[in-house]
Amino acid sequence: MLLIVLELIGIAVFAASGAVAAVRARLDVFGVIILALTTALGGGVIRDVLLGVHPPTTLRTWPYLLVAGVTGLVVFWYHPQFEKLRRSVLLLDAVGLGLFVTSGTTTALSLGAPPYAACLIGMTTGIGGGALRDLLLREIPLVLRREIYAVAALCGAVVVALGEWAKLPKGLVALIGASIIITIRLIALWRKWNAPVARGLDG
Amino acid sequence: MLLIVLELIGIAVFAASGAVAAVRARLDVFGVIILALTTALGGGVIRDVLLGVHPPTTLRTWPYLLVAGVTGLVVFWYHPQFEKLRRSVLLLDAVGLGLFVTSGTTTALSLGAPPYAACLIGMTTGIGGGALRDLLLREIPLVLRREIYAVAALCGAVVVALGEWAKLPKGLVALIGASIIITIRLIALWRKWNAPVARGLDG
Amino acid sequence: MLLIVLELIGIAVFAASGAVAAVRARLDVFGVIILALTTALGGGVIRDVLLGVHPPTTLRTWPYLLVAGVTGLVVFWYHPQFEKLRRSVLLLDAVGLGLFVTSGTTTALSLGAPPYAACLIGMTTGIGGGALRDLLLREIPLVLRREIYAVAALCGAVVVALGEWAKLPKGLVALIGASIIITIRLIALWRKWNAPVARGLDG
Repeated sequence: MLLIVLELIGIAVFAASGAVAAVRARLDVFGVIILALTTALGGGVIRDVLLGVHPPTTLRTWPYLLVAGVTGLVVFWYHPQFEKLRRSVLLLDAVGLGLFVTSGTTTALSLGAPPYAACLIGMTTGIGGGALRDLLLREIPLVLRREIYAVAALCGAVVVALGEWAKLPKGLVALIGASIIITIRLIALWRKWNAPVARGLDG
Repeated sequence: MLLIVLELIGIAVFAASGAVAAVRARLDVFGVIILALTTALGGGVIRDVLLGVHPPTTLRTWPYLLVAGVTGLVVFWYHPQFEKLRRSVLLLDAVGLGLFVTSGTTTALSLGAPPYAACLIGMTTGIGGGALRDLLLREIPLVLRREIYAVAALCGAVVVALGEWAKLPKGLVALIGASIIITIRLIALWRKWNAPVARGLDG
Repeated sequence: MLLIVLELIGIAVFAASGAVAAVRARLDVFGVIILALTTALGGGVIRDVLLGVHPPTTLRTWPYLLVAGVTGLVVFWYHPQFEKLRRSVLLLDAVGLGLFVTSGTTTALSLGAPPYAACLIGMTTGIGGGALRDLLLREIPLVLRREIYAVAALCGAVVVALGEWAKLPKGLVALIGASIIITIRLIALWRKWNAPVARGLDG
């Protein structure tokens, strides 16, 4: 039950990030909703396509669709307020990433994927929606450029895979994995951590 | 039989729209053909990947490939004439959208997807090819920006889902769904309807 | 055995092309590795998604992941040297294309795809990774613009399909298919072959 609530929060947060980006790109109301849906559900759809779950769970679960669509509408109407909420959005985005990566990795393991494949698929679940959002708006995906985003996702996925291998209880494993991702992201944002860029290009 | 002819027309129209865009982007003849194929078959491939039909029907049906490829070639050779046909292309594009959304929704329902998932998949079938075309040419997809495109697709998909739920004959349902999409699109083009953009960005 | 070595070379080459492009786009070290993985494994993932192999073979085979990731790291550290190797990279890229198209077509045929579908899927296997690389970096995919790339892939795929239809030994067929692709690409590079662009746009 708590897990479902958290998952819906993750979807709402990702939907909001897609909708805010769409409003900034001056899309109309339907474009904003489509981008909210794509960002919120894209990662889960990619996960299910890779794992052969047909049709994708996220498309079959109406509360997910409802939450993502309504969030898109709310952002469309009240977007100036969302600008002020930028910090909370970054916090919630970290929560969403943690939840999506954890659930993606767990699902992949339970469907029999080997651990390293499950880690990759879990990471893709977390970063796929945001990558689609940036692609559709013709940006180089943020995840390729910023603040230890992918590496936080990967760390969490690896911890989940290790935890399942050690046969720890699933709830505990998910909790630890998500916490690690959220912690890394928040520290990275707070300290403005960035990974190194290749040498010889700055001169 | 009529349905197959209409589907081939839809494929030809979408292939033409991809090829015209490719010619404008100054791609060579093979780039034009690839873009014609991608635009015409992309929506169906996405539909089949989401529904777990392997390999995708559109790739297994040689008349589809033939029609899309030949259309691409014809546009490549005679593209100045196609500029003059712009109005007819917009009309045919509406027909193509109507047919693709309807067939996508029907296929999804017949493979056991719940109605709201079938609507989303049907909508994606109709708009997916065009979105791929715009992505490959580095444009923000038209569907996100223009003239009630996605909403027309969604209305038609919902009507098809309602009709199947009411157990109306499938041919009739498809006809009504496609007509609604075509009508909305043509009225939107004629009246230059556009959906609202978020407030506070115009000043 | 030889085949596996050749496949690993193909993966390394494609990973290097992704990593070089990422370094030029000034991505950080994780962005470079992600782009190396995407370019090297993307074509195979697309092939397996189209054919319904879940989870995709490329994600389940750890030497592929290792080779692609390490190649990305090496390019990140030693990229100035890679600039000098540009010619060798183009040569190796031709080899990679030949191997990927051949293995993609063979896999599709062995899973029961009809020959023309197998050719398309084989071609997509070869060009998909590079297309993803260019999409993520916001470029119009090279394959749409350059030097007989797609057509070389298609020729090789058709030869493989013909060879299997004639029941020639698989190793021989793969060898011939790959050689044809490599030869066409090298001649195209050497003679600076390009396909014609549509008339009437140059004035």
